Amino acid sequence: MQIAILLFDRFTTLDAAGPYETLSRLPGAETVFVAERTGTHRTDLGSLGMVADAVLADVTEPDILVVPGGPGQIAHMDNGALHEWIRAVDAHTTWTTSVCSGSLLLGAAGLLKGRRATSHWLALEQLRGLGAEPTGERVVFDGKYVTAAGVSSGIDMGLALAGRIAGDAVAQSIQLGIEYDPQPPYDAGSPDKAPAEITAAMRELSRFVLAGETQSAPEK
Amino acid sequence: MQIAILLFDRFTTLDAAGPYETLSRLPGAETVFVAERTGTHRTDLGSLGMVADAVLADVTEPDILVVPGGPGQIAHMDNGALHEWIRAVDAHTTWTTSVCSGSLLLGAAGLLKGRRATSHWLALEQLRGLGAEPTGERVVFDGKYVTAAGVSSGIDMGLALAGRIAGDAVAQSIQLGIEYDPQPPYDAGSPDKAPAEITAAMRELSRFVLAGETQSAPEK
Repeated sequence: MQIAILLFDRFTTLDAAGPYETLSRLPGAETVFVAERTGTHRTDLGSLGMVADAVLADVTEPDILVVPGGPGQIAHMDNGALHEWIRAVDAHTTWTTSVCSGSLLLGAAGLLKGRRATSHWLALEQLRGLGAEPTGERVVFDGKYVTAAGVSSGIDMGLALAGRIAGDAVAQSIQLGIEYDPQPPYDAGSPDKAPAEITAAMRELSRFVLAGETQSAPEK
Repeated sequence: MQIAILLFDRFTTLDAAGPYETLSRLPGAETVFVAERTGTHRTDLGSLGMVADAVLADVTEPDILVVPGGPGQIAHMDNGALHEWIRAVDAHTTWTTSVCSGSLLLGAAGLLKGRRATSHWLALEQLRGLGAEPTGERVVFDGKYVTAAGVSSGIDMGLALAGRIAGDAVAQSIQLGIEYDPQPPYDAGSPDKAPAEITAAMRELSRFVLAGETQSAPEK
């Protein structure tokens, strides 16, 4: 069972690491990190590099596709070659998945039209613009399309999908292995639960960042 | 504020990625991945490479040290040069931290003697053997030493530490940004909560793996 995890520059680390740490522990899983070029891809924070071992052309029939998000996703919303690859491998996958704003790439490739899907809470309206029906759920299954909300939700998605693929006991073993018994010190992980002023400030910041990203290339 | 995250071959991805995704989002944070050699380090699963940009000698006075775990930790329990570096940087840190079996490296370096600490649930007895007082808690603060339980617990540790460093509002913003509103599909994330037969099987497997690891180098 081949799992292909897409990388691009300025992806968000945990978007990729959550599904990796869960799905790649399935019996028979063989994971490949794939990108438009092999080698190091820097994360959104810049301070970490993760390595793609394969180029798109090397990966043609994965069983599972995982598309992470992160600010780097924006640069690929018009990347026709990437969208074509996503559509081509989707024709072979058993499961096509995304975390965070990765669902915007699935949407841009035309795969989520009329489907229930999710994304980072700040990206739900954009997702609607791509023809999907956004939900506020953390993990959304619609047929073989599985989308997860922001960043950390890929862990929950990975476990839920592991259960569908290999059964509850295997998924529970993976959960126990990674000791996923979450005890966040705050209850601020969703826009409804966080203090209102924090949610508002982040919404404002995101509007600002997004405006910057979608204008001409920023000075480096 | 410099955050140094240690890498070594066969580390566990999420052990490093959890603290990275949380602590590195603190205002003023500057994170460096550091190892005995620069370049790609493969994870425990082998299918992902993460890049260390600095060697130990380059990083002398970090404010925060993060030591991840993973099966690769075993090869460094007698690595005197690494222990010496851990002790040397610990003399400068504000916080010395670990995730999973990373605490065994802190312990091997002599930093946890008489201290309350934690580790992956399968490693708690080993931690005791290094002079620490293991607890079953998910995140343990003892002075400037902060240890987290298995793999995914580094996210909780990162948020708790972010709160201590920068205040609740900043930590809550980080939690909201990574949408950390965990909803595991099972309640099997600790040895007490998982089905007894799954916990027992993993304990047995771990005994087997550990025996293999601590014998002469395996055939490759």
